Amino acid sequence: VTPAPASPSRRTPGRRPGGPDTRGEIVSAARESFADKGFAATSLRAVARQAGVDAALVHHYFDSKDELFIEAMALPLDPRQVAAAILDGPRAELGRRIVTIFLGVWESDEGRQRMTAMLRSVVTSDEVARLMREGITKMILEPVSQFLDGADAKLRVGLIAGHVIGVALTRYVIELEPIADADLTTLIERIAPAIQQYVDS
Amino acid sequence: VTPAPASPSRRTPGRRPGGPDTRGEIVSAARESFADKGFAATSLRAVARQAGVDAALVHHYFDSKDELFIEAMALPLDPRQVAAAILDGPRAELGRRIVTIFLGVWESDEGRQRMTAMLRSVVTSDEVARLMREGITKMILEPVSQFLDGADAKLRVGLIAGHVIGVALTRYVIELEPIADADLTTLIERIAPAIQQYVDS
Repeated sequence: VTPAPASPSRRTPGRRPGGPDTRGEIVSAARESFADKGFAATSLRAVARQAGVDAALVHHYFDSKDELFIEAMALPLDPRQVAAAILDGPRAELGRRIVTIFLGVWESDEGRQRMTAMLRSVVTSDEVARLMREGITKMILEPVSQFLDGADAKLRVGLIAGHVIGVALTRYVIELEPIADADLTTLIERIAPAIQQYVDS
Repeated sequence: VTPAPASPSRRTPGRRPGGPDTRGEIVSAARESFADKGFAATSLRAVARQAGVDAALVHHYFDSKDELFIEAMALPLDPRQVAAAILDGPRAELGRRIVTIFLGVWESDEGRQRMTAMLRSVVTSDEVARLMREGITKMILEPVSQFLDGADAKLRVGLIAGHVIGVALTRYVIELEPIADADLTTLIERIAPAIQQYVDS
């Protein structure tokens, strides 16, 4: 699909000034474009065109492409805030912070529902898998791996992500015992050293 | 549902002597019963009744309830063989064997397709999640945890399962870089120590 070049003066019937659904339509168009073309190749201008609105309206609702991307991923939390919280403290405690913050998101009923829904979409849709791949890379892997030493820092952060996602899957989705019923603090105590090993080595 | 007691001499119209689909119908009835009532509460006799066949026919196709259960889970491999291969060797190398054998299943195109399909079913169906929970517990967690010291051996084996499942999810389903493109040997070298830590501590 190659959309026609937009001109600021051109007004099509589909170009609305911003009704109650406009924000949702922008997010929808963005989700499609991010999934189809990836983050880098998606422009706010193209999203505006796709949604049938003026580019200025996209900027009115979203400060940046990052914000639009986070909204498109429908995450229960802002991954930039998660990354900032993870990095806020000594590196010797990074393993514990990662486990505590990540599992903490799943502990509330709402967080668990939204994370489970996200996991479902990831394994059943290639488009969502791509969105998630780009999102995790850009907002978690890259900032956190810069905090680590070693040539394979990104691989290690990826393995950390794999570990905590897998624990969440067994605890909250498969509900495997005794992980599902384990006290959260006990679980954190157990997992933190394995994560810390990836941080240190 | 409380089925009427079966009598060997009673023949109902639905009770077939064993046609081409009989085996599949037994597996289907078994899957339903395992998901609904769990492994322990499912009897081969009740499965036979549910499938509308004689109990002797179930025994003709399946040596044991374990065999029927494995078939019902539609796994790409026999978990008892996996557990046996994992346990065959020194405990100091257990971490490496677990990662090597588990990721090995995903490496072939067919294995990957079947494991991905299984993962999809697990996250989208509570019934399959329950089947998998019972299957992992009975055929992996229990035998492997007996091989470990410590009171929380089962929890640690569960965390090991969580770790390797999560790595498979990031590598083969989300295709997160650089895990997705990493050389398998490099990956095993990286993950084995984290798994071994759960084995040892």
